[in-house]
Amino acid sequence: MSAPDYGRSFALWRDACADPWQAYTRHAFVEGLADGSLPREGFLNYLRQDYVFLINFARAWSLAVVKAGSMAEMQAASATVHGLLHGEMALHTGICEAAGIPRAALAATEEAPQNLAYTRYVLEVGYSGDFLDLLAALAPCVLGYGEIGARLIAQDRDTPYRDWIETYGGAGYQQMCRDTGTLIDRAVADRLGPAPETLPRWGQLAHRFATATRLEAVFWELGQP
Amino acid sequence: MSAPDYGRSFALWRDACADPWQAYTRHAFVEGLADGSLPREGFLNYLRQDYVFLINFARAWSLAVVKAGSMAEMQAASATVHGLLHGEMALHTGICEAAGIPRAALAATEEAPQNLAYTRYVLEVGYSGDFLDLLAALAPCVLGYGEIGARLIAQDRDTPYRDWIETYGGAGYQQMCRDTGTLIDRAVADRLGPAPETLPRWGQLAHRFATATRLEAVFWELGQP
Amino acid sequence: MSAPDYGRSFALWRDACADPWQAYTRHAFVEGLADGSLPREGFLNYLRQDYVFLINFARAWSLAVVKAGSMAEMQAASATVHGLLHGEMALHTGICEAAGIPRAALAATEEAPQNLAYTRYVLEVGYSGDFLDLLAALAPCVLGYGEIGARLIAQDRDTPYRDWIETYGGAGYQQMCRDTGTLIDRAVADRLGPAPETLPRWGQLAHRFATATRLEAVFWELGQP
Amino acid sequence: MSAPDYGRSFALWRDACADPWQAYTRHAFVEGLADGSLPREGFLNYLRQDYVFLINFARAWSLAVVKAGSMAEMQAASATVHGLLHGEMALHTGICEAAGIPRAALAATEEAPQNLAYTRYVLEVGYSGDFLDLLAALAPCVLGYGEIGARLIAQDRDTPYRDWIETYGGAGYQQMCRDTGTLIDRAVADRLGPAPETLPRWGQLAHRFATATRLEAVFWELGQP
Repeated sequence: MSAPDYGRSFALWRDACADPWQAYTRHAFVEGLADGSLPREGFLNYLRQDYVFLINFARAWSLAVVKAGSMAEMQAASATVHGLLHGEMALHTGICEAAGIPRAALAATEEAPQNLAYTRYVLEVGYSGDFLDLLAALAPCVLGYGEIGARLIAQDRDTPYRDWIETYGGAGYQQMCRDTGTLIDRAVADRLGPAPETLPRWGQLAHRFATATRLEAVFWELGQP
Repeated sequence: MSAPDYGRSFALWRDACADPWQAYTRHAFVEGLADGSLPREGFLNYLRQDYVFLINFARAWSLAVVKAGSMAEMQAASATVHGLLHGEMALHTGICEAAGIPRAALAATEEAPQNLAYTRYVLEVGYSGDFLDLLAALAPCVLGYGEIGARLIAQDRDTPYRDWIETYGGAGYQQMCRDTGTLIDRAVADRLGPAPETLPRWGQLAHRFATATRLEAVFWELGQP
Repeated sequence: MSAPDYGRSFALWRDACADPWQAYTRHAFVEGLADGSLPREGFLNYLRQDYVFLINFARAWSLAVVKAGSMAEMQAASATVHGLLHGEMALHTGICEAAGIPRAALAATEEAPQNLAYTRYVLEVGYSGDFLDLLAALAPCVLGYGEIGARLIAQDRDTPYRDWIETYGGAGYQQMCRDTGTLIDRAVADRLGPAPETLPRWGQLAHRFATATRLEAVFWELGQP
Repeated sequence: MSAPDYGRSFALWRDACADPWQAYTRHAFVEGLADGSLPREGFLNYLRQDYVFLINFARAWSLAVVKAGSMAEMQAASATVHGLLHGEMALHTGICEAAGIPRAALAATEEAPQNLAYTRYVLEVGYSGDFLDLLAALAPCVLGYGEIGARLIAQDRDTPYRDWIETYGGAGYQQMCRDTGTLIDRAVADRLGPAPETLPRWGQLAHRFATATRLEAVFWELGQP
């Protein structure tokens, strides 16, 4: 099965950092989700850290609203924030409670260094750079989860982590990934024109993407007991 | 009729800049809305500038999501952004179209210096300061419109600007003002404790509020032909 | 006499907003400096506001250090900050004291809306955009003063404002303008390559330049009694 | 020997995170510098990462200039930036060249996740918070190195890392630490008054300090082969 199509910019950035991308999307944690070998304890630790991660992820998408260059860009980023804060956070809290992690414990989670590294990198890129820098740093998370989800759901294996796989491999999340890919491609074209990969700026954006990808792989370490 | 109650911080900040507050909330533009003497051309110019204003206002509230200190603060600010971008902007566009200003003309509006002054002041305070600084700079707009709306709707006068008055004097906007006042008071208490007005920080926040209030009065100039 | 050469980007941006540039650099305030007809009171008011302006200008150049992409860019911006905070501010304070405005009065100056508009626009562009956006918004002030100074010093007229003219028309400031022009051209090339004016990004940068230019003309109003 | 006195805020923040502070200032890397047992290779890796660290550290102090509330605060932060960019960076490059790491290799260093975690945390706190938040996140680095240097120089042991110890234990750096402690105490008093530790805000600042301290200990890992 070939990787899903989330647009041109993403495909180019991903191919420009093939090794880190492989280390991220084929990480032992991911394979442990796929075949069910991931210990429960590791998954719960991941969920705890992911709760704090989602808060900062919503902050980063809010910063994208501030940095947007058009009403369409603002509305796209704002819809993501709204979905995260008024939907997915509740879903996540529910999953954690079902797994025996009460809401109060979630809120009291001490952020691991690996978690701080990723989210603060993205936010700092967003503050210091412009809308494109921020999107390039956000893309590995949004679209990497989509690519992993699409690959794992197609395997259709028996695993206790089926819910996770169906969340990210499911039609809703996949559509969101295609929309995000379109948002990125349009934002690139609206600033850098039809041949962005010929500009020095492109290498800078690809570097943001590659660094965020490296930090995603580091984040998975949190899921290993 | 006494002013509506939008919380303790607002009341203190407003009373600390009584003259600018008066200049803002009793501006000739406001009285012209109330008695109908405001020329149509002035109102349309105000609407055009207000469209660009609302975009930057939504950006400022998005920055409040980034700068929030709790999930409750994030959700409150995010709900405001969502309401602005997915509701009020459409409403505003509709009013303008009905008034003969097509959407394309709105988007092409050149921001007046008075408009730039206000919105960039608020955004810069938000970037340079923390969540409280940003709320103090946002408050005069949100709550000043509420106070004006409440006063004018109670007068029940015959004016072609009845729609504007009912928007801001109506129950929905008034409730939103009370909620914003509560958000501010809680955010202040969660950071500065039970006696914030005894701290140097309070004077700094009051100064943000006063400067934003001065710039609101300057903004009304745009509505005078 | 032809305008001094401060680089290619500046020349293109300036020519793309010829009317606002004319309104700024040939403003009545400037002509009043040149022929001495500017009332003393207006000049003193300008000096008072300019003190607060310089503080925010130093803040904006510090933000340029944060947003720089190389050690050379950081050092160039940092040298400007250092020169402003440890040199020009003292010079400015001295001029004001000689003119009868004590230091305490300077620090207590209430920022005029025209002052807020310009500095907060620049700072907000700097926060929301990247290094290029910030440079494009800073350029009209740095290089416009240089162009005005070069023109006025060549006129060699008798005016009580000779000191001002010699400051900005003098060799030191002119060299700084050429260095800033070089910094801008290199920063553009390092990001947007050899034909930046073919990209949509160029129009966005030119728009920042044009808006800052418009606000410079508005700022001169402060110097008119 | 008692710890040096770098002011009241620092002492309180440090004592509020005694375990992370111990893990940072008594880390195996530090003891290896003290007794000379640290392998050369580890020290060189630390130097390489520290070069990139210093760049981001200078960016963070530049952000402090932007966020300062008075001319005195601006000048203090600006002097630190100037010293870093026009002095210490050259010194650091010199040490690295003497150790066989050419300048080009330094500039090409790939930032380790532990490096990204610390510097991006500080910068993001600086962007999202105010001047105090930024100082609280910067303090563990500036003052922790001072405390370590003061302790190690007093031991007067024979170690190949004597230069490092004399840099941070020497009179110049110790004076800078006392000045920074004074800057922090004044900035706190100018915002939060005479009893800041009674406010919720204090716990938030102490949390920034504690998190940065945890990340300093993580950074030392880079110095271990």
